Amino acid sequence: VQKIVECVPNFSEGKRPEVVREIREAIELVRGIQMLDVESDAAHNRSVFTFVWEPEAALEGAFQGITRAARLIDMNAHKGSHPRIGATDVVPLVPVRGVSMPDCVALARRLGERVSRELAIPVYLYEEAATRPDRVNLENIRRGEYEELKTAITTDAERKPDFGPLVLGSAGATIIGARAPLIAFNVYLNTNDVEIARAIATAIRHSSGGLAHVKALGILAEGRAQVSINLTNYGRTPMARVMEMIRREAARYGAVVTRSELVGLLPAEALTDVAAYYLQLDRFSPSQVLENRLAELEKAP
Amino acid sequence: VQKIVECVPNFSEGKRPEVVREIREAIELVRGIQMLDVESDAAHNRSVFTFVWEPEAALEGAFQGITRAARLIDMNAHKGSHPRIGATDVVPLVPVRGVSMPDCVALARRLGERVSRELAIPVYLYEEAATRPDRVNLENIRRGEYEELKTAITTDAERKPDFGPLVLGSAGATIIGARAPLIAFNVYLNTNDVEIARAIATAIRHSSGGLAHVKALGILAEGRAQVSINLTNYGRTPMARVMEMIRREAARYGAVVTRSELVGLLPAEALTDVAAYYLQLDRFSPSQVLENRLAELEKAP
Repeated sequence: VQKIVECVPNFSEGKRPEVVREIREAIELVRGIQMLDVESDAAHNRSVFTFVWEPEAALEGAFQGITRAARLIDMNAHKGSHPRIGATDVVPLVPVRGVSMPDCVALARRLGERVSRELAIPVYLYEEAATRPDRVNLENIRRGEYEELKTAITTDAERKPDFGPLVLGSAGATIIGARAPLIAFNVYLNTNDVEIARAIATAIRHSSGGLAHVKALGILAEGRAQVSINLTNYGRTPMARVMEMIRREAARYGAVVTRSELVGLLPAEALTDVAAYYLQLDRFSPSQVLENRLAELEKAP
Repeated sequence: VQKIVECVPNFSEGKRPEVVREIREAIELVRGIQMLDVESDAAHNRSVFTFVWEPEAALEGAFQGITRAARLIDMNAHKGSHPRIGATDVVPLVPVRGVSMPDCVALARRLGERVSRELAIPVYLYEEAATRPDRVNLENIRRGEYEELKTAITTDAERKPDFGPLVLGSAGATIIGARAPLIAFNVYLNTNDVEIARAIATAIRHSSGGLAHVKALGILAEGRAQVSINLTNYGRTPMARVMEMIRREAARYGAVVTRSELVGLLPAEALTDVAAYYLQLDRFSPSQVLENRLAELEKAP
């Protein structure tokens, strides 16, 4: 397979496994689609799917998932702690191999247009596919959630979707876009004082003055203070720098990191960047990795 | 390609490019062989080749290289700063993909038997292919070099080769074996005092009380004190631990590491191990790397 796109749709259902299973099956009927991960959260009442395949298959898989979710999920009856505006809340497309970011933006637009035309669902484009600066950030589009958007989409010109009707049905609206791979990881501290984790999260995250491309929150997990991080661009804000900032801020409170964990998958490059950082390999090149050389050889005819 | 072996033959010629080229061409005539690297050192009067391919092709490539080197290199006329006993001095076989260490040991024995039979060159098996504990280490086999071995091979029962005649011709003897991938890297200090690099090398290397699987020496390179490391088993002695020991010893002398560099190739796993170490990813699994999952999917029919 020469071209691979990753698709990470978020569906507003995390309590009824039979609904999640039906959506999954609809996606997996598309030839080639490889489902890598399905995570359901009951408190959030939300499920995050991760699947990969060729661009056209990924588009078709996303469309089938959106179609099934629209049939099975009624947003008027949905309750959950995670902000959302639709049965399929958000669909990021991520370039993985042989595909550029502009390719994924074009794919996001085609998917959005089709969803609006065939399903009459309003679609907002976000991140790299955004058509306006205030729609780059997901949180802006989701402001007020499904309940407020129901009125606002009709009355507020600012909230006009990129595609589709100016009215919300029971499937709500869907946010579709293209973005770089996101890395989710959790860092545990040697304390049960959640306030320290919250203070560190506040210090490192972009929204409160910290590092670009970092979202973070402090929670109590397994009886330990945990900083939970979403890194939206590891190329510009490397994992190592985030980790060092956490360590430095933890020291400020007399705490240290005991261990960390990845949530879901991450690109190999993010880890080799970490290795090059700590080993001080200033001139590191991916062609110094044996497996990369083998992959190149096998690509050449 | 399902099965890949890496072969890193060392030839006793680093001054005459036409000889190096002829040996290279003899190896590359073998169908499939992929030459990844050729490094010649005039002071050492030695060239190190790195090539990969399927086990049978790797064996054939090594045999063709040994044959050509025996024809072109006269050990009676060879001078160089690196210890050596043969025109083809040493041939390590390294498992890369779909091949086990025992597979490479078996391959080394077959290659050794063939070299002795068809070329009348004495062969010593080393590292994982060694038939005696005192032959695990290359340096023991090379004791006294070509000049001393010429007499000793006939007179000293201890130096009887694993295969071949008890006499050295102009091609000398060849050491063949199987080993884990070796990682070579250099670490630069913020000083031109080579004694500090030598003291660090002495502290970290196995032979003088340091870490297992570490060979090291201190030299002056580009006007900077440099610790040059060969790591022969990164699985048991991880790069991160070696690096931290260098940093700690450097601090002992008031020095710090300014940068480091890889020499040649290294396996991806060595770098992801470094990342997991510094990020404290206690439960890291290679299946969390997106590219590994894709490779698995593509392997499955």
